[in-house]
Amino acid sequence: MTQNRPALGVGMVGHAFMGRVHSQAWRSVGAFFDLPVRPSMTVLAGRSQTRASAAAAELGWAGAETDWRRLLERDDVHVIDICTPGDTHAEIAIAALAAGKHVLCEKPLANSVAEAEAMAAAAEDAAARGVRSMVAFNYRRVPAVAFARRLVADGRIGTVRHVRAQYLQDWIVDPEHPLVWRLRREKAGSGALGDIGAHIVDMAQYVTGEPLTGVSGISETFVKERPLPDGSGTGAVTVDDAVVFMGRLAGGALASFEASRFAPGRKNSLRLEVNGSLGSLSFDFESLNELRFHDDTLPAEEGGFRRILVTEPGHPYAGAWWPPGHGLGYEHTFTHEVRDFLAAIAEGADPAPSFADGLRVQRVLAAVERSAADESRWIPVGA
Amino acid sequence: MTQNRPALGVGMVGHAFMGRVHSQAWRSVGAFFDLPVRPSMTVLAGRSQTRASAAAAELGWAGAETDWRRLLERDDVHVIDICTPGDTHAEIAIAALAAGKHVLCEKPLANSVAEAEAMAAAAEDAAARGVRSMVAFNYRRVPAVAFARRLVADGRIGTVRHVRAQYLQDWIVDPEHPLVWRLRREKAGSGALGDIGAHIVDMAQYVTGEPLTGVSGISETFVKERPLPDGSGTGAVTVDDAVVFMGRLAGGALASFEASRFAPGRKNSLRLEVNGSLGSLSFDFESLNELRFHDDTLPAEEGGFRRILVTEPGHPYAGAWWPPGHGLGYEHTFTHEVRDFLAAIAEGADPAPSFADGLRVQRVLAAVERSAADESRWIPVGA
Amino acid sequence: MTQNRPALGVGMVGHAFMGRVHSQAWRSVGAFFDLPVRPSMTVLAGRSQTRASAAAAELGWAGAETDWRRLLERDDVHVIDICTPGDTHAEIAIAALAAGKHVLCEKPLANSVAEAEAMAAAAEDAAARGVRSMVAFNYRRVPAVAFARRLVADGRIGTVRHVRAQYLQDWIVDPEHPLVWRLRREKAGSGALGDIGAHIVDMAQYVTGEPLTGVSGISETFVKERPLPDGSGTGAVTVDDAVVFMGRLAGGALASFEASRFAPGRKNSLRLEVNGSLGSLSFDFESLNELRFHDDTLPAEEGGFRRILVTEPGHPYAGAWWPPGHGLGYEHTFTHEVRDFLAAIAEGADPAPSFADGLRVQRVLAAVERSAADESRWIPVGA
Amino acid sequence: MTQNRPALGVGMVGHAFMGRVHSQAWRSVGAFFDLPVRPSMTVLAGRSQTRASAAAAELGWAGAETDWRRLLERDDVHVIDICTPGDTHAEIAIAALAAGKHVLCEKPLANSVAEAEAMAAAAEDAAARGVRSMVAFNYRRVPAVAFARRLVADGRIGTVRHVRAQYLQDWIVDPEHPLVWRLRREKAGSGALGDIGAHIVDMAQYVTGEPLTGVSGISETFVKERPLPDGSGTGAVTVDDAVVFMGRLAGGALASFEASRFAPGRKNSLRLEVNGSLGSLSFDFESLNELRFHDDTLPAEEGGFRRILVTEPGHPYAGAWWPPGHGLGYEHTFTHEVRDFLAAIAEGADPAPSFADGLRVQRVLAAVERSAADESRWIPVGA
Repeated sequence: MTQNRPALGVGMVGHAFMGRVHSQAWRSVGAFFDLPVRPSMTVLAGRSQTRASAAAAELGWAGAETDWRRLLERDDVHVIDICTPGDTHAEIAIAALAAGKHVLCEKPLANSVAEAEAMAAAAEDAAARGVRSMVAFNYRRVPAVAFARRLVADGRIGTVRHVRAQYLQDWIVDPEHPLVWRLRREKAGSGALGDIGAHIVDMAQYVTGEPLTGVSGISETFVKERPLPDGSGTGAVTVDDAVVFMGRLAGGALASFEASRFAPGRKNSLRLEVNGSLGSLSFDFESLNELRFHDDTLPAEEGGFRRILVTEPGHPYAGAWWPPGHGLGYEHTFTHEVRDFLAAIAEGADPAPSFADGLRVQRVLAAVERSAADESRWIPVGA
Repeated sequence: MTQNRPALGVGMVGHAFMGRVHSQAWRSVGAFFDLPVRPSMTVLAGRSQTRASAAAAELGWAGAETDWRRLLERDDVHVIDICTPGDTHAEIAIAALAAGKHVLCEKPLANSVAEAEAMAAAAEDAAARGVRSMVAFNYRRVPAVAFARRLVADGRIGTVRHVRAQYLQDWIVDPEHPLVWRLRREKAGSGALGDIGAHIVDMAQYVTGEPLTGVSGISETFVKERPLPDGSGTGAVTVDDAVVFMGRLAGGALASFEASRFAPGRKNSLRLEVNGSLGSLSFDFESLNELRFHDDTLPAEEGGFRRILVTEPGHPYAGAWWPPGHGLGYEHTFTHEVRDFLAAIAEGADPAPSFADGLRVQRVLAAVERSAADESRWIPVGA
Repeated sequence: MTQNRPALGVGMVGHAFMGRVHSQAWRSVGAFFDLPVRPSMTVLAGRSQTRASAAAAELGWAGAETDWRRLLERDDVHVIDICTPGDTHAEIAIAALAAGKHVLCEKPLANSVAEAEAMAAAAEDAAARGVRSMVAFNYRRVPAVAFARRLVADGRIGTVRHVRAQYLQDWIVDPEHPLVWRLRREKAGSGALGDIGAHIVDMAQYVTGEPLTGVSGISETFVKERPLPDGSGTGAVTVDDAVVFMGRLAGGALASFEASRFAPGRKNSLRLEVNGSLGSLSFDFESLNELRFHDDTLPAEEGGFRRILVTEPGHPYAGAWWPPGHGLGYEHTFTHEVRDFLAAIAEGADPAPSFADGLRVQRVLAAVERSAADESRWIPVGA
Repeated sequence: MTQNRPALGVGMVGHAFMGRVHSQAWRSVGAFFDLPVRPSMTVLAGRSQTRASAAAAELGWAGAETDWRRLLERDDVHVIDICTPGDTHAEIAIAALAAGKHVLCEKPLANSVAEAEAMAAAAEDAAARGVRSMVAFNYRRVPAVAFARRLVADGRIGTVRHVRAQYLQDWIVDPEHPLVWRLRREKAGSGALGDIGAHIVDMAQYVTGEPLTGVSGISETFVKERPLPDGSGTGAVTVDDAVVFMGRLAGGALASFEASRFAPGRKNSLRLEVNGSLGSLSFDFESLNELRFHDDTLPAEEGGFRRILVTEPGHPYAGAWWPPGHGLGYEHTFTHEVRDFLAAIAEGADPAPSFADGLRVQRVLAAVERSAADESRWIPVGA
């Protein structure tokens, strides 16, 4: 049966960290999910022929190219998977959509609102022609996060009153950590804000189902000068090390956000807590198979946050994998993402999160930056 | 030996929740701490003679008065312990200090900066005459919190980069909860901000040893009308239900605060996390005997937040009580507070937190309110 | 009103660790619980006049005696509270009951089954004369444990299938720790088995409501020789350092027990987990305000151990103290114990746990010792 | 470079739960680990041609056979991976080794000691001819477990005093759960004992580096009759539902074990705690990326179990995957297993755990059964 499914050729641009994890997703998705199409790992693109070929062999891609434009020209490539830094997203995505390729694009969608607007417009045009696009906020596909969304949508926590979201890492606490591309504005757009803050903005809006209507923020670069990676001296860090911001959701809830790479001992601690009129939810990616749920409609004596192992057959995505309690990891969020993307393509539906969703996040990030630059003044965020 | 210690008569004003827990502290302190003075539970004051007398008998006070001014006139009263709502603090405290009585005053110090300034001035005058005063930020006396302060002071987490503090409760989530005095501005000054937000502002400044230099905030009253306690209809809630604010500490750290009574499942969750250049600390009052400490100077493979049971003889206060692991509760923070207050009086030293510390907290609270009323604009906080 | 309640004079024998915590219970109980009688801290007995008098002053007792027999002769003493090592329990308790005094006796009830049998017989005789007795398994009075019992009794976890109980400490891991009385058979009867193993046997039987019908055990003394406390050389450790045993409950459940003083990092970790046909309960005294409850009758997607903060007004004992989430400590278990003991005396009822309950625990301990000495052979335990 | 590595053809027998997870391991290992050989997913064997072919297509195997003996005859198959129930292990493994195929065999090694002895003998013979064998105790390859072993081997917890190991599941709590093969002695050998108890016996011996020298046990079948899977009535459950046993390690430590499928809310809770003279370790598979470590050599005030996220580059296996804090899942233990097996084959070394290790576990299981059948009498376990 698997053999009879139409094949869908995938071309991946970039093969660093994101390229490796996307490859594992493309490689695994068919063995666990019953898909109407069969993804084929056709080709990857990288700037160096040597490294691209080695990566293709190692990661399981049939071929390698040095120019991503070549992928757009190939008839055996139907999907472009963009795994490069943010400064290249707009150009590649817009060209790919124009060429009729479905596009999966890493987050943040772009390095500026203007780029994101152009991408969202291109995506809307393409959708009219049946060409699909999706931005890779992979953490939506943690089963616990998707289940949190379901509980909120089902009214289980009532009216949302509070969101508190943190994304804490510690990989540049050491001032000798080199000035990698993620610390340079021209490549990364921003620092903790765009890299990890983008995830919690998207997750807060996704889980609550409500957009942010305004924000106020502060930010800081604690280590202002770092060694260059090539050892040729030091250079200025041109992005934020950490950002703290507050906001309001459309339904009136208060939201609190914090993204930092300066929290020792917090390795990849993406935490979200939502308090509603009927209950609360709490999540930490460092314990990704768990969701905490307090149901305030129970008798007071029986209340309390319960640790739900989100590994039951009835939980989102979980049934495709192992028996209850056996646990998934980081990479599975990408496998789920690819699954949903392929399913949408096959069904002729628009996958979520869309480029428009990515643009909405971009606008929040821009508003935070503007507020931080203007005495934390409240900045409304448009739709 | 105990018998030879000079007695110190205590007069307590108010005998509700705070009066009950202060009474337990006065009753217990001598059995566990080796004090140079012997507190005597001389008299309490309450507005109703019947209820005051019953409370005195129940709580172990020798006598009862209906006017707190009577306590100031008595020679056998050396200490005034103020356990009334915030609108009465200034008048009682200033009069007591003028009468030469040492004063322990519940927090927040006052309902306005002006009152707090007058109190701090009175306290400074009194101190010159050997009369002591202290504001009751009891959570400083959780052994885990005092130990956190010691670790920071010893340089164990290095330069502070982040503080995130939350005080979450859920006792008024139900819109039918009556309009008690804590929900009325004229009695309480503010809502979650002054009642519980004051604690986390003080704790953040205490543990880091750094004052806040500015803040930006938002606040909300989710339930605007509530039943009157006497059943005679409904009335307007005139204080905040929740407040979110950000700030900077003198050393450049970013701080994030949240105080809410609308977080279902969070009963008395006073949480503080501090990230520094060398490590991190984390505390939650719902697990009050524990402090989490990550020492970033250990090899990366051996790092991780360790759950220190702060019950060892070498921990602050803990040695006076039970063997390791046996656990203290809420009331012990007051016993420790009373212990330190009495020790300071006996030694002729000024206890901490002083009224000046209370004033500093009051200024932060006022700045938060001002910011929340002015588009979250950044409000500097004076010393 | 308090004044009109009949006073009940208490005489306490012993004033070391247990004496201190019992004193705090007697001192506090009246301020928090509405009791039909008023306990009076009349007199304590200790072998040294100097130390007994100092202890009485420090702990709040009106007088001190050097011979416990004197307490039995006094008309103003109605209750004898036995806080001495186990080798003295039988003699004191039997004499006190014969003298018509109500008796609260520390655990383990005795150092041998024979002694415990004599005590239980004496208690039965005394009860017929309206004289009450109780053995001080204080951990039954942790609100979380009492609430666990209530859930089991209400059928919330169905038929009990598993009990796993551990009591882990680490205070003698260091081989240089001196040979204190708790390490000598002639004073303590046994080591970890009787001191802490007794608690988990009682708790397992109490929470499930089912007696153990047989056991099999192993035990070990890891450090066989220790310095004498007076520095005069070393002596043999004559009790067990650790014991592991298994058993069956009357209803067919399998039970697993472990008591050790050699578990580094476990300070006072008394843990109990019960699995039933409809749910599970889990408790650890190191987090004494919490009970974990998994309700297996919920949909699978919503199951999970919930962390109930056992601090609600509707929880056992909790309503007498502080608002939800404010937390109690070790000493409160004794205050609750004293409360229940006084209530039973006033109501003319037999308090629990009775001396018969203490005897039942003693029989289990003896069976474990016998099994450990006989190739772990299964030893039935009589009723 | 990858292309130049010698290929190693793999033939897998069985394609149910274990076959699926082994397939994911074979599929992924090359993309993450730098191996000297290149595994090729050559063929799988299953009894039904239709289902075997479908499984091969879905799981990524090049071909399918209906008789495992065919795999032994093929020159392009160098490795036999046995994923069938325990009653078939001995026959397949012994034949495969005789045919010169390297063998990876699922646990438990066999359904009886006699079979396991024959297998261990065959493995020893084969090793002399350069043919390798390994038993699949996959949980050794959880990074946290491998790191625990390293800490013990490095002397970080000193002399081992206690091991407590539990493997708790709840999938047959419902008496209507059908009588699947795992509940029938003729297929599975035993119930919880062999299926999950085997894992904790192996893990305890692996982490401590010490064999068990004797055991005493009890076991129970709570639900004695269950519906047949084909709906044709009910049948007797012929294996244990749960087993509790105690043991001693060669170094004198006391060990406590429990394996149950009747612990509601415990989904796959494989827990191990080891207490030594210098520290303690604690692990629970439900939080598989974490290891708790208490270092008792630190000052008492700074002790406490630290939650190490075992995701650092310096941790076993972790460096091959994602950045710190990103988390692995259940399936990765198999990828690590396959990696170590392939590395051993390439290096001409004997992989661990060997069939001799599997036999040792089998002897422990047999001793537990014997003890449970003979009044829990202590049964020594030979080497």
